[in-house]
Amino acid sequence: MSEIKKIKPALSKGTRDFLPVEVAKRNYIFETIKSVFRKYGFEEIETPAIERMETLTGKYGEEGDKLLFKILNSGDFLKDVPKDELASANSAATLKYIAEKGLRYDLTVPLARYVVQHQENLAFPFKRFHIGPVWRADRPQKGRYQEFYQCDADIIGSTSLLNEVELSMIYAEVFNTLGLDVVIYFNHRKVIEALIALINKPEYAELIISCIDKLDKVEWIKIESELHAAGLIKEETDALYNSIILKASTLWAEEDIKLNGHGFDAYKDISAMLKIIGDTLPNLVYNGRLARGLNYYTGVIWEVVLNKNATANGNITMGSLGGGGRYDNLTEIFGAKNMSGVGISFGIERIYDVMEELNLFPATVSQGVKVLLVPREEEMQEFAFQQAHALRSAGISAEVYMGNVKKQKHFKYIEDKHIAWFIEVGGDEQASGKFRLRNVQTRDTQSDLSLLQLIELLE
Amino acid sequence: MSEIKKIKPALSKGTRDFLPVEVAKRNYIFETIKSVFRKYGFEEIETPAIERMETLTGKYGEEGDKLLFKILNSGDFLKDVPKDELASANSAATLKYIAEKGLRYDLTVPLARYVVQHQENLAFPFKRFHIGPVWRADRPQKGRYQEFYQCDADIIGSTSLLNEVELSMIYAEVFNTLGLDVVIYFNHRKVIEALIALINKPEYAELIISCIDKLDKVEWIKIESELHAAGLIKEETDALYNSIILKASTLWAEEDIKLNGHGFDAYKDISAMLKIIGDTLPNLVYNGRLARGLNYYTGVIWEVVLNKNATANGNITMGSLGGGGRYDNLTEIFGAKNMSGVGISFGIERIYDVMEELNLFPATVSQGVKVLLVPREEEMQEFAFQQAHALRSAGISAEVYMGNVKKQKHFKYIEDKHIAWFIEVGGDEQASGKFRLRNVQTRDTQSDLSLLQLIELLE
Repeated sequence: MSEIKKIKPALSKGTRDFLPVEVAKRNYIFETIKSVFRKYGFEEIETPAIERMETLTGKYGEEGDKLLFKILNSGDFLKDVPKDELASANSAATLKYIAEKGLRYDLTVPLARYVVQHQENLAFPFKRFHIGPVWRADRPQKGRYQEFYQCDADIIGSTSLLNEVELSMIYAEVFNTLGLDVVIYFNHRKVIEALIALINKPEYAELIISCIDKLDKVEWIKIESELHAAGLIKEETDALYNSIILKASTLWAEEDIKLNGHGFDAYKDISAMLKIIGDTLPNLVYNGRLARGLNYYTGVIWEVVLNKNATANGNITMGSLGGGGRYDNLTEIFGAKNMSGVGISFGIERIYDVMEELNLFPATVSQGVKVLLVPREEEMQEFAFQQAHALRSAGISAEVYMGNVKKQKHFKYIEDKHIAWFIEVGGDEQASGKFRLRNVQTRDTQSDLSLLQLIELLE
Repeated sequence: MSEIKKIKPALSKGTRDFLPVEVAKRNYIFETIKSVFRKYGFEEIETPAIERMETLTGKYGEEGDKLLFKILNSGDFLKDVPKDELASANSAATLKYIAEKGLRYDLTVPLARYVVQHQENLAFPFKRFHIGPVWRADRPQKGRYQEFYQCDADIIGSTSLLNEVELSMIYAEVFNTLGLDVVIYFNHRKVIEALIALINKPEYAELIISCIDKLDKVEWIKIESELHAAGLIKEETDALYNSIILKASTLWAEEDIKLNGHGFDAYKDISAMLKIIGDTLPNLVYNGRLARGLNYYTGVIWEVVLNKNATANGNITMGSLGGGGRYDNLTEIFGAKNMSGVGISFGIERIYDVMEELNLFPATVSQGVKVLLVPREEEMQEFAFQQAHALRSAGISAEVYMGNVKKQKHFKYIEDKHIAWFIEVGGDEQASGKFRLRNVQTRDTQSDLSLLQLIELLE
């Protein structure tokens, strides 16, 4: 940095800085979730941001491959690219020669890799949680970022439905602790499959699932056209409408799904789950229209949304605060068969936005040190510093205001850092060894306190 | 994932997965450091992993530019590259057209960008800490990774030496809390500059500083040859040897550095610091040979090393556990002049290795849930689950072993997850409502406990 070339300070698009108060609030959400996870025996793991392209490619569909961030190989990265591909500026063909690595797109594929790679060193059933950033080259827009956090808990290696019950309880406990009034919808992928089986067009299953997934956002009439355009006839879409829209949204369409094996499996699973849960989880609600977009789910699926009654003015944008499900084949791609998994995720970024809008963060979350010592003039800094040192030695968080006191900026400092108490320190205090403690909120004042009395009061 | 193509699960070179016990130990280090930072009034911030190449390039020297991880632009990334550069496979010339973004190389340049960009929303003096991963395309080797954590605390916008005192105290408190016996060396960049001024060759300053920085690893005779090769004569290297090697390592070479203005500034700063500190920081030691490699330092500098006496067998690889210093011009590049900063960093990865080798992690760090309920047969899982639910409702962390009990694998599970207590649950327990609690470590057993008694005991 010997010669200074000025640069406008700017973020890369779709990324964010977090101010201290934002980090404090995000940490509050993370810590709340983590403590519930730990109470149920989930352990935290970490995987790297960078994965081999081979691990990432092909796992998220064609669209997903495009959204992967690829990292350029180091050094002379063009040296192995065939000349003709370069000459024709063929980006797609060049890619595999110049980018061996990419940024993880979610925490699920890395989990599958991790479980297979470290299976000898893990306790099974493996209950892990992971909170961390993921990266997607999506077009940035309000509430959508290229770098954002995911928060997942999964249980790998147990097919018992008690795991589904446990994860439902975790959802209920976390949202309750955060003060968010939610509905935890659940369904079973095999219910959906059974409903689709009614029209006997298995090749349309993936399309129909993605259509059902859109039911909350898109009118049926538009979805119907889409299905007709794809080749289904009116009779078939009517059958789907009757089973999915009319019946499935109440309880599941019992008489329909029992017609075939898949449906009966789902019926057994859901009955068993509900029997164990009893009336302990009033906000767990069956929703036969719930489909979930991801195609790896094979059993129970969840989606959590804010209870509409929770918002007096109804202004909150709805949308998922979490989702998950059981998947049977996720580790197969890395060579480990028959390792059933089930997991839930929390939509951290949206939870933050909703809590902010509903004003649900406790005031204590962003609190700074307990007490600020404000030297009345610069020569008093050292004396103030000694008092702060004494307070900290007694375990009380404290700092000395090191800015310009004459400009009265310490009041802004106190406000910005959410400091609870302050003490002005000058010649009088130094001479007498007595201090006046002021509470910022209540404006209460206590005078003539010795250092020992201060410590007792603030402890 | 409709068709499954098998992939060998593997990490990208130079990256790591962390097992649950490793994450727990790393979190212990992070939380210890964070709680000290907070006690002194530092606030946590976060910046994105991805920064614009413009922000990163040219900040870490030529070598650093090579070690930056560059992210390939999305879409048809070759479309703007001049044809002739592609035809000649000129990687260097192509770079600026195909990679606008990169991964952050440290937390310091992002801090400078952040402070300038958000200055209207920050409380000054701005005391922040930041713990997070950074990425460097270094050749991976033992203890050196391409993705690793940094942990920094900085104070921006105050020139008072009390900040240096505060940061020295934080170093002492953190390492003391972690149980690491360290020496906190400090020096002043202007001492080094004054010593260099003795030979009146300012153009060699950067080279000489980098040579001094190597003194602990490289013999003087080799460094001397390097300096001669670069153009210094024997008289000059002898003068440096006398002032730096012979004198400066005791206290600073007072008679030498006072000869010029720079030296006198340093003398004043160090005297003031030491006067305030008095005898409160016995492991803070002046070291006139300490230089620190980074060229942006302008004042006090630190480096923390393990006290040699701390290792009975002396087998621990020495090396820095932390370092820092004052810098006056870091934000200038982003357009904010005269914003002096001072900061320290903790070498998290090395601290982990040393603590592991010295066995310094408390046993409680990696502890799982308090109690594991082990169903004697599968039909007892649900009953066990109800008991676990009751325990958790009382705030006691608990889980049900969902694996195969017949294979006796629950003992391995208990051991792997560091669980303190376990209870076997079968038909007898269900009939009587009485349980036998066993301590895994002591093998103590308490029988005939009702659920309420269990809760009381475990609380």
